[in-house]
Amino acid sequence: MAYTEYYTPTHIYFGRETENLVGKVLKEKGAHKVLVHYGSGSAEKSGLLGKVRASLRENGIEFVELGGVKPNPRLSLARAGIELCRKEGVDFILSVGGGSALDSAKCISYGVPYDGDVWDFYNGKLPEKRVPVGAVLTLSATGSEMSNSSVITNDEITPNDKFGSNTNMGRPVFALLNPELTYSVSPFQTGSGSTDIIMHTLERFFHSGADLDLTDNVAASVIRTVVKYTAVALNNPCDYEARANLMWAGSISHNGLTNMGFESIGDWACHRLEHELSAIYDVAHGAGLSALWGTWARYVKYVDPSRFAKLGKLVFGIEDASADKAAELTIQAFESAFRSFGMPVNIPDLLGRRISVEDCRMLAEKASLKGKKTLGNFRILQTEDMFQIYKGAALL
Amino acid sequence: MAYTEYYTPTHIYFGRETENLVGKVLKEKGAHKVLVHYGSGSAEKSGLLGKVRASLRENGIEFVELGGVKPNPRLSLARAGIELCRKEGVDFILSVGGGSALDSAKCISYGVPYDGDVWDFYNGKLPEKRVPVGAVLTLSATGSEMSNSSVITNDEITPNDKFGSNTNMGRPVFALLNPELTYSVSPFQTGSGSTDIIMHTLERFFHSGADLDLTDNVAASVIRTVVKYTAVALNNPCDYEARANLMWAGSISHNGLTNMGFESIGDWACHRLEHELSAIYDVAHGAGLSALWGTWARYVKYVDPSRFAKLGKLVFGIEDASADKAAELTIQAFESAFRSFGMPVNIPDLLGRRISVEDCRMLAEKASLKGKKTLGNFRILQTEDMFQIYKGAALL
Repeated sequence: MAYTEYYTPTHIYFGRETENLVGKVLKEKGAHKVLVHYGSGSAEKSGLLGKVRASLRENGIEFVELGGVKPNPRLSLARAGIELCRKEGVDFILSVGGGSALDSAKCISYGVPYDGDVWDFYNGKLPEKRVPVGAVLTLSATGSEMSNSSVITNDEITPNDKFGSNTNMGRPVFALLNPELTYSVSPFQTGSGSTDIIMHTLERFFHSGADLDLTDNVAASVIRTVVKYTAVALNNPCDYEARANLMWAGSISHNGLTNMGFESIGDWACHRLEHELSAIYDVAHGAGLSALWGTWARYVKYVDPSRFAKLGKLVFGIEDASADKAAELTIQAFESAFRSFGMPVNIPDLLGRRISVEDCRMLAEKASLKGKKTLGNFRILQTEDMFQIYKGAALL
Repeated sequence: MAYTEYYTPTHIYFGRETENLVGKVLKEKGAHKVLVHYGSGSAEKSGLLGKVRASLRENGIEFVELGGVKPNPRLSLARAGIELCRKEGVDFILSVGGGSALDSAKCISYGVPYDGDVWDFYNGKLPEKRVPVGAVLTLSATGSEMSNSSVITNDEITPNDKFGSNTNMGRPVFALLNPELTYSVSPFQTGSGSTDIIMHTLERFFHSGADLDLTDNVAASVIRTVVKYTAVALNNPCDYEARANLMWAGSISHNGLTNMGFESIGDWACHRLEHELSAIYDVAHGAGLSALWGTWARYVKYVDPSRFAKLGKLVFGIEDASADKAAELTIQAFESAFRSFGMPVNIPDLLGRRISVEDCRMLAEKASLKGKKTLGNFRILQTEDMFQIYKGAALL
């Protein structure tokens, strides 16, 4: 019996100055003692952390803080967060930042009530309990504010592993989305975030099994919106309309809406292939995705060129009598969009240097767990396929 | 401080045979003793109630039953449900049916833990507690399965009042959406349901204040989908793809997605004007809405013809240099769609007879609570405006 679950319990507050609601909302959601979890100094310098602290104090909510989350958030910091939460009796975790702070917060939230090693949850085990998580979001990218996902890099082993955990326990209780907080996001991070948003939609669009036409149309609306407003935001970083559209696109591209009614939750091969790149080269996730997608798409498009053609028609208005030709035009249009975001469309562009055939082989071996795992379902990829895709993206 | 809340906690299970999950899902959601609430005999005759009972028994869930919900669900039956739940110690209410059974279930859910008169909640009071509600849906129309709304007709007074209650307490805990269960919906009810879905989107599209372009595009996707697949479903009632698209369109047209990021929750004047029609003439809600919308639209379009033009372009591809002309073409295109659904576009068509100017006056007096209430916000309507709209729709 095949069915789609759609479960998006996250209570969203969207609009200007919504970060000031944080104390009130935490109180309503039952928080008494909060871990405020954040990344670099920018949340401090911008005054955002100050506002958050003031709102918490006004509402009589105790809190402790843990900063220092890096992009590709690390297991070691999450472990420190788990210890701190236990010691301090924290009953709610507040992420202040982008997807990295949020993913780290999710990891902590599973670890606090768990007797074993939290890394278990990034190796297939499902958490049964969590400390609830809320978010003040400062970046439109990962969609983690409504998603069931978190991705953690294990920095305790060499080479690093970057694994994900997908569970409804990972859906935040609330998220405060103020597009103004993304005005200061750099052009590169804006482009990388927009790529991530598009990729969350593309990973779902290509899959095995039945679709739902309404969902295809919603997905195309998300992608069209991102293409349109990324250009506006790159031109004027303080354009509210652009930042607002990108922010909501980020949330709905990854909350399940764009695979509603589909027989599978998507292909996700590019995400897995990218995780190896960012685990090893520590690149921005969005940039890693755009460096791979075109090669992946050309490698698999023969499976169903009409699916690519439908996408191209809905997003870019591409019409061609030949599905195969339309599919190629669609892939080119996406590569062109990624380039306009300032993103690489191959690995040398991504890293600023070439990698070797041996590197590609090593990446493919890691991605497939030495041949024990296939990736994707639009086309199922074996280790050799992964190697070919890395090699193609490496221009070898 | 203006912001949009988006809160859709309802856990959706979408696909063929999902009704068979009902016992398992009720158990997971903590139900012990359930009120199974339904409408006419069709749920019995089709075997759906039998399946629901079997699934409940399999999962060791006790239940009592209350059938007899009518379209435009009545307060008197809800009162009987409240008494029954109290007597039997019911801790979960399961609606099996369309929006009427669900709205009646919501009314019962507020009433059980409340000491006062449940009708208070349809006169502006907000419930603080409820018994949780779940749904097996058999009709694509009201969107009540994910919405915060319920509408109840007070049959204890003459003429009847039909009032709504909007509260997050009204959002069901889960809903099982099997499009196959709507195969047996009649052509008239299919057309009326599709009109209701479109109207939930139109009521939000027209409002005062700022919009969000992504939301406009999602709204247009919903409407285009409904126009396309209503034709398919009327032609072949057992077309799964058509029924699936209509079903999901119904849910997202009324869960808040189509006004996300808007400064207001929409206009809603047509809904209020229609409630008077169905309270007094007991007509199908969707049919009442289509009988009024064109007249409302022509009455208010001067406020912002470009908003109508944007809608026409996104939904029907209407292009015209003059916003005013494009607005008129858009209104005509919607009337034409409603007619193609078998729906009336004026009051005589709706009732099969004419009403008098005095009737229109009485309806306007009721809708405005004798001049104490205005309706709408795209254009704020006074009693006299309501009278003009009823008169126009009555072809007087």
